[in-house]
Amino acid sequence: MENTRLRRDPVSLRWVVISPSRAELPFPGLPVRPPGVPAEACPFCPGNEAKAGPEIHVEREPGSPANGRGWWVRVVADKYPILHIEGGLEKSAEGMYDSMNATGAHEILVETPEHDQHWADLEVLQLDRILRACQQRSLDLRNDPRFRHVIWVKNHGLPTSLFQHQHSHIVASPFVPPAIEEELRGFGTYVRWKERCVLCDMVKQECAVGHRIILREGTVLVLAPFAPRFPYETWIVPTDHAHDFGATRTAVLRDLARALQGIVTRIRSLLNDPPYTLVLHSSPLGEFTREEYHWHLELVPRPPQVLGLEWGTGIYINPVPPEVAAERLRQAVQ
Amino acid sequence: MENTRLRRDPVSLRWVVISPSRAELPFPGLPVRPPGVPAEACPFCPGNEAKAGPEIHVEREPGSPANGRGWWVRVVADKYPILHIEGGLEKSAEGMYDSMNATGAHEILVETPEHDQHWADLEVLQLDRILRACQQRSLDLRNDPRFRHVIWVKNHGLPTSLFQHQHSHIVASPFVPPAIEEELRGFGTYVRWKERCVLCDMVKQECAVGHRIILREGTVLVLAPFAPRFPYETWIVPTDHAHDFGATRTAVLRDLARALQGIVTRIRSLLNDPPYTLVLHSSPLGEFTREEYHWHLELVPRPPQVLGLEWGTGIYINPVPPEVAAERLRQAVQ
Repeated sequence: MENTRLRRDPVSLRWVVISPSRAELPFPGLPVRPPGVPAEACPFCPGNEAKAGPEIHVEREPGSPANGRGWWVRVVADKYPILHIEGGLEKSAEGMYDSMNATGAHEILVETPEHDQHWADLEVLQLDRILRACQQRSLDLRNDPRFRHVIWVKNHGLPTSLFQHQHSHIVASPFVPPAIEEELRGFGTYVRWKERCVLCDMVKQECAVGHRIILREGTVLVLAPFAPRFPYETWIVPTDHAHDFGATRTAVLRDLARALQGIVTRIRSLLNDPPYTLVLHSSPLGEFTREEYHWHLELVPRPPQVLGLEWGTGIYINPVPPEVAAERLRQAVQ
Repeated sequence: MENTRLRRDPVSLRWVVISPSRAELPFPGLPVRPPGVPAEACPFCPGNEAKAGPEIHVEREPGSPANGRGWWVRVVADKYPILHIEGGLEKSAEGMYDSMNATGAHEILVETPEHDQHWADLEVLQLDRILRACQQRSLDLRNDPRFRHVIWVKNHGLPTSLFQHQHSHIVASPFVPPAIEEELRGFGTYVRWKERCVLCDMVKQECAVGHRIILREGTVLVLAPFAPRFPYETWIVPTDHAHDFGATRTAVLRDLARALQGIVTRIRSLLNDPPYTLVLHSSPLGEFTREEYHWHLELVPRPPQVLGLEWGTGIYINPVPPEVAAERLRQAVQ
């Protein structure tokens, strides 16, 4: 058994405790997944388009009517947006404090017309449509000068999810999210020191070593990072340097669709269809763009909360070494 | 109803979405709290001292035997430490990556001999003993030159907790936890700009405005911060500037004990005894000490996970404005 070690992630510069001995700790099961809204009442099912609201973006069968059946993917405004599209930023002070309007965009990407379909069972063509819709929204939202960043987040099967129909969130914000800021510091430090991209160097080293690679589809690499915060945390990285997901070429998107299908299939099979979260990390927009950034996706099967240390202190304890996770995930689908 | 606003926390510099309208969102209940280990088998109960291991620090009745009954508070080594006391740091490279031994200390502070007692029902004297034990451990652990920081974390009633007997964790680490690093950046920026402590300024402004104050005990202020990440997040702050919890005077500790009892009682009453996490934030140690830091405690009733945005992007959405939380908590105990 490998000893407990502290490892530092070279992108975020955070130290993580890789602690295989804590895998022996008794751990209560995950909360039971609630049944969710049934298909009849599901706003994301065909026939219920009015419930979800008018489409901002759609891919549909030729000749099918707008906001009616016949779509493959559909983007609508979120009914409970965390950021609102209306109004200016109206930055203001309250004594020493700063506040501004929660201006931004919050959209829902409905990923398939089928109520019960799992990402692992989608055709690569359908995953490709999802990625293209996401890219289109990113390109459109950046025309709004109030927005500094667009993020894409997919939650699958969280116990707090109301809707089990596959969907994800696209959020444009007037500030750079802290997780991206943290990485920008890492990319910036590395590029000043080495004049190279840290994630490009990681790709090269991982390809040379091999034991943290899970799979590869053309120009897209799927790996367990050296210092993962969570068991089975997975990064999906384009092998060629590119800071902006919005500028991704069609061929790379197709590789990405295949890579996503591969990893989601393996995670479902190995971990018995766990909840997971998938987050797109891309460069900020406009004048805040940073070309040393390297876009990628981070996928985390539902993290258990053992000590409350994680969010309280930023210290993460991971009982599954990434080499073990990668080995198991490589073997998961034969 | 107040509009959704973005607010920036002046200590951590993070933007938080205060979104009262999202309070209407239907939300599944919290997971049920498991029963935990019964008193007979509880390693933290009197008579079972051998199960918990030898005491590193203790306060006990005069004349009672070491590692036997008669103690009031007791500190032992954690059986599944996240960081290990043995060995040097042995920093090493693996290609471009950095790692070191997970060296540190991980201790359990057993906070009362009573198996079923809640913090809200402890005497102020007993809370004072807990705080003094924590302070003593902090002073002792800093003699080890490998350690840069000591953190104290208490989890109450988490669904993942094995032991319901009141206890907390003291962790000494060879690096500064990211949550503290983040605050140090905020304190540093503010002191360079204003030549004052940002938390001292906050204390002054909150006292002048009043509507985010929950209670005050002598030199200790309990408030809802301007930009809380979580509903009912509460900070407990000494009003006089002090960077080091280890150096806290006896009179301030006594005020702190009273303040903690006050806020824990109100949270239990208002929110129906929710799980919560309490984290001590104090300056790093030795050569890493920063005198512009201002020690404090952060208390968070169990945060719901609505979007997975929180840990994935660092963006927090809080449906309860701190002015509302403070008002409700002030009224909670009449």
